[in-house]
Amino acid sequence: MDTKEALELIEAAQKKLFAFNAASSSLYLDAVTVAPRDTAEGRGVALSVLAGEQHKLLTDPALAQALDTLEANKGELDLLHARQVEELRRSVRQLTRIPAEEYMAYAQLTNEAEDVWHRAKEQSDFELFRPCLEKLVAYNRKFAGYYDPDKAPYDALLNEYERGVDTAYLDSFFAVLREKLVPLIRAVGERPQPDVSFLHRHYPAEQQRRFSDYLMQVLDLDRAHCGIGETEHPFTLNFTSQDVRITTHYYEDDLASSMYSVIHEGGHARYELDVDPQVEYTVLAGGVSMGVHESQSRFYENIIGRSRPFIEAIFSRMQAFFPEQLADVTAERFWRAVNRAEPSLIRTEADELTYCLHIMIRYEIEKALIGGTLEVRDVPRTWNRLYKEYLGLDVPDDRRGCLQDSHWSGGSFGYFPSYALGSAYGAQMLANMERDMDVWGPVARGDLGPVTAWLTEKVHKYGGLLTPAQVVEKACGQFDPTYYTDYLTKKYTELYGL
Amino acid sequence: MDTKEALELIEAAQKKLFAFNAASSSLYLDAVTVAPRDTAEGRGVALSVLAGEQHKLLTDPALAQALDTLEANKGELDLLHARQVEELRRSVRQLTRIPAEEYMAYAQLTNEAEDVWHRAKEQSDFELFRPCLEKLVAYNRKFAGYYDPDKAPYDALLNEYERGVDTAYLDSFFAVLREKLVPLIRAVGERPQPDVSFLHRHYPAEQQRRFSDYLMQVLDLDRAHCGIGETEHPFTLNFTSQDVRITTHYYEDDLASSMYSVIHEGGHARYELDVDPQVEYTVLAGGVSMGVHESQSRFYENIIGRSRPFIEAIFSRMQAFFPEQLADVTAERFWRAVNRAEPSLIRTEADELTYCLHIMIRYEIEKALIGGTLEVRDVPRTWNRLYKEYLGLDVPDDRRGCLQDSHWSGGSFGYFPSYALGSAYGAQMLANMERDMDVWGPVARGDLGPVTAWLTEKVHKYGGLLTPAQVVEKACGQFDPTYYTDYLTKKYTELYGL
Repeated sequence: MDTKEALELIEAAQKKLFAFNAASSSLYLDAVTVAPRDTAEGRGVALSVLAGEQHKLLTDPALAQALDTLEANKGELDLLHARQVEELRRSVRQLTRIPAEEYMAYAQLTNEAEDVWHRAKEQSDFELFRPCLEKLVAYNRKFAGYYDPDKAPYDALLNEYERGVDTAYLDSFFAVLREKLVPLIRAVGERPQPDVSFLHRHYPAEQQRRFSDYLMQVLDLDRAHCGIGETEHPFTLNFTSQDVRITTHYYEDDLASSMYSVIHEGGHARYELDVDPQVEYTVLAGGVSMGVHESQSRFYENIIGRSRPFIEAIFSRMQAFFPEQLADVTAERFWRAVNRAEPSLIRTEADELTYCLHIMIRYEIEKALIGGTLEVRDVPRTWNRLYKEYLGLDVPDDRRGCLQDSHWSGGSFGYFPSYALGSAYGAQMLANMERDMDVWGPVARGDLGPVTAWLTEKVHKYGGLLTPAQVVEKACGQFDPTYYTDYLTKKYTELYGL
Repeated sequence: MDTKEALELIEAAQKKLFAFNAASSSLYLDAVTVAPRDTAEGRGVALSVLAGEQHKLLTDPALAQALDTLEANKGELDLLHARQVEELRRSVRQLTRIPAEEYMAYAQLTNEAEDVWHRAKEQSDFELFRPCLEKLVAYNRKFAGYYDPDKAPYDALLNEYERGVDTAYLDSFFAVLREKLVPLIRAVGERPQPDVSFLHRHYPAEQQRRFSDYLMQVLDLDRAHCGIGETEHPFTLNFTSQDVRITTHYYEDDLASSMYSVIHEGGHARYELDVDPQVEYTVLAGGVSMGVHESQSRFYENIIGRSRPFIEAIFSRMQAFFPEQLADVTAERFWRAVNRAEPSLIRTEADELTYCLHIMIRYEIEKALIGGTLEVRDVPRTWNRLYKEYLGLDVPDDRRGCLQDSHWSGGSFGYFPSYALGSAYGAQMLANMERDMDVWGPVARGDLGPVTAWLTEKVHKYGGLLTPAQVVEKACGQFDPTYYTDYLTKKYTELYGL
C-alpha cells in the first residue's frame, strides 16, 4: 500500500465513521424528542448493529496497515492528515482492546439505560435504575482496564475525556478551588440575598420559545444550520459544522432555567458551527475535547450571559418578550437575581459560584464507584451525605438527587470534571481576551461578534486540528486555576459588596 | 457452509439491513420534521454511505452462497425461513445489477431532491426542481433496465411496487374504472352539491391536534408505540412493529384535510402494528406491498371513515372538540360534506370518487416519462392539459399542480397506481367482510375492533410471510375491480339520490 492508497483508505473509513455516528445521533435525537415511550427495543438493536459496524471498521487490519504506512511516511503528511492519523490510531488502539461483542452489548445497554433512567427519574425511583447503573459501572471498570491496564481505572476513563488529566491533577485542581471558593461562598452566605421572586412568575412556554429564538439571534446562530428542540435534559448535538442542534427545557415558573440553557448550549453550537469545514467528515470534525467544549458553553453562559453589560444590553428587549412579568424589574435587579449564589439541589440550575461543588460531589462518587470503594446501591446515601456536607442541603428525593443527570445513564464516567475544568479555562481565556481587545464595549451594545471572533481564532476553528492541550495553550497560555478563582472573587465581591 | 451456518448468516445480514434502514428512516424523519433548512449536504453523505453499506451487504458473495445452500435444502426450511430466502434472493438479484457507485449516488440524489422539491413547491417554481427530476427519471430508466432488460422500463418499475402488475394490467384496470366511473361522476355533477362551508371555518391547529389524539384512540393506536408528527406531506414510517410514526399537516381553514390524513395514515400504522412480531428484524417485517398497504389506509379512511355509521358514531365527540365550529351542524350534513364529490386540484384532498382520476393522470405521465415519450420540461404542460381534460380544471400554478406530491422527489415512479389498486382491493375486502360478519353494527357504536380483527387475520398479521398476491387472494379472493365500481356506484347513488 503506498501513501496515496493509504490516504484514500483512511478518508473512506472516516466518512463511514461519520455516517455511523450521524445515524446513531439521529436515532438518539429521535429517542429523546418525539419517539413514543415503549420503542427502545428496536432502536437498541439498530444502535448495537451500528456500534458493531463502527467497531469492525476501526479494527479492520487494512486500516491498521494504512496507518502503519502513513506513520512510516509521516514527513510527507500535512498537518490535516498527520492529525487524522494520530487520532485514528488512538481510536483504533482503544477499540482493538474492547471485544466486539462487549462493545455492541454496551451500545445496547446505554440505549436501554437512557430509557430506564428517564422513567426512574420521573418516578424518583433509584431502585428501578440501579441494575442498569451496576452494569454500566461494571462495563466501565472493565473498559478502563482495556484502555490502560497500568492506570487506576478512573484515571484511564478521565484520560478518555480530557487527555493527560488524572486523579492527582484533579485532586490538586479541586483543592485550589476548595481553598479559595469555600471561604468566598461562606462570606456570600452572610450577606443579604437579592430578590429573585420575579424570575418565578408565570412565563408561558410559548413566550419563552420566542425568547429562545431571540437569544439564538444574539449568539448569531444561523437558524438554517442550527435547530432548537425540547428535551428533559438540554444538550447539543452536531451532525456536521453545517448542521447543529441544541435543546432546552421550559419551566413555566422559571425564566432563568431555559434562558441560560439556551445560552449554554448556544455556546456549544457556536463552537461546532465555527469549526473549519476542511475537517468535515473526518475524526477531526467537531470540538476537540469535553473540557474545551464546556469552556465555550460556560463562557457564553456565565462570563458573558451573566455579566452586567450583557444584561443591560438585552434587558429592554427581554421586557418586550415578557412585558407583564418584567414590567417592574430593572436590568440591575435582573443581573443580581441571575447571579444569586446559594446552595441548591440541581446542578444544571446552580449558580456560577456554587456550581463547582456539584461537580466535586459527582467527581468523588465516580472516583469511588470506578475505584471500587463504593457500591452502586450506596450511591443515593453517599450523594445525600455529600450534599449535606458540602452544600448544607437535605436532598428530598432521588429525582432531585442522584437521578438528576443523564450522564451516567449514557455511560459517561469521567465527564463531569470537564465542566469544572472548562469553567477554569474560560476565566483564563477572558483574561487573555481582555489583554487583546475591548471585550465589554461591544458586549454592552449587545454585539458578541468580537468575542466570537476571538474564540473562533483561538479555539473554534481548529476542531481537532490541534490537540486539546495545544488549544488550551493557545487560548489560555500555561493553565492556572487561580485565574478562575480570581474571576469569581472579583465578580462576587462586587455583587455582594464583600 | 451447512444449513445452520447459512441461517445464522442470513439472520445477521437481515439484522444489519434492518439497522441501516432504521438509520436512514431516522435521518429522513429528522429531515422532514425538525432539521434546519440548509443541512441536506451532511445528511446526504451519511445516507449515501448507508446505502453503500446496504449494497455491499446484499452483494456479498457469502450471502449469495448462504442463499444457494438454503435453496438447495428448501425442504428443511419452515415458511418463515423459506420466505426470507425468497425475498432476500429477490433483493440480491436486483441490487447486484445496480453498480454500487450508482446506488450510492442515487441515495444522495433523492436526499437532495427532497430538499429542492420542498423549496420548489414553496415557491411554485418547477424550473428549480426540473434538473433533479431529469436526473431522477434518467436513473429510474437505467435502473429499470437493470431490474429486467426484457421488460419495458415502466413495467420493470411497476413490478417493483406491486409484483405481477404491468402496463397491460393497469391499462385494462383503469379502463374498467373509466367506463363505470366517468358516467357516475357526470351524473353526480348534475345533482345539487351539499354544503361544505362549515368544514372551512376556523379550526385552530391546537384543537385539531387534540382531535387527532382522539382519532388515534378510535383506531386503537397505542401511543406508547405510535407517534404523530407534522410534515408538509403526511406519511407513515415504521421502524419496527413496536415503533410506528404517522404525520399529518394542519390547515386551520380545513377540518377534513388533517382528519382524513390521520385516519389514512392511521390505517397504515394499524397494519404495521399488527404484523406478527416473529418477522421482526427480517426482510419480511412490515406491510407486504404498496398496493396492500394502500388498501388498508384507504379502507380506514374512506370505507370506514367516510361511512354514515362511523360519522354518526363519533359526531357528538367531534362537536365536543369543536363546539363553536360544529354547533349548527348535524352528523348527516357532516357525512354529506366529507363525501362531496367534485373535481379538485389536490390529490390528497380529493374525494373518494374523483380520486382515481388523479391517479390516472400521474400514471399516464409516469408511463410516458419512463417510456421516453415525454420530456421532463413538458411535465407541467402535460399535467395541466390532463387536469383540464379529465377533471375540467385549470391548474393555477405548479404548487397546486405537478409539484404537489413528494413521490417523484423521493424517486418513486410506479408507486401511484398502487393507490388505485389498493382502493379496489379494499372494496372487495369489504364485500368479503360483510359476508363473514356484522361490519356496521360495531362501527355504528364507534367500535372498530371487529373490522381491525378481520383485517389483522386476513392481511395485517402476515407481514411478508405471504406474497402480495397471496394476501390479496386471502382477503379478496380472485381480484375483480367491479367490486370497487359497484361500491362507489351504490355509495354515490345514495348520497346524491341518483
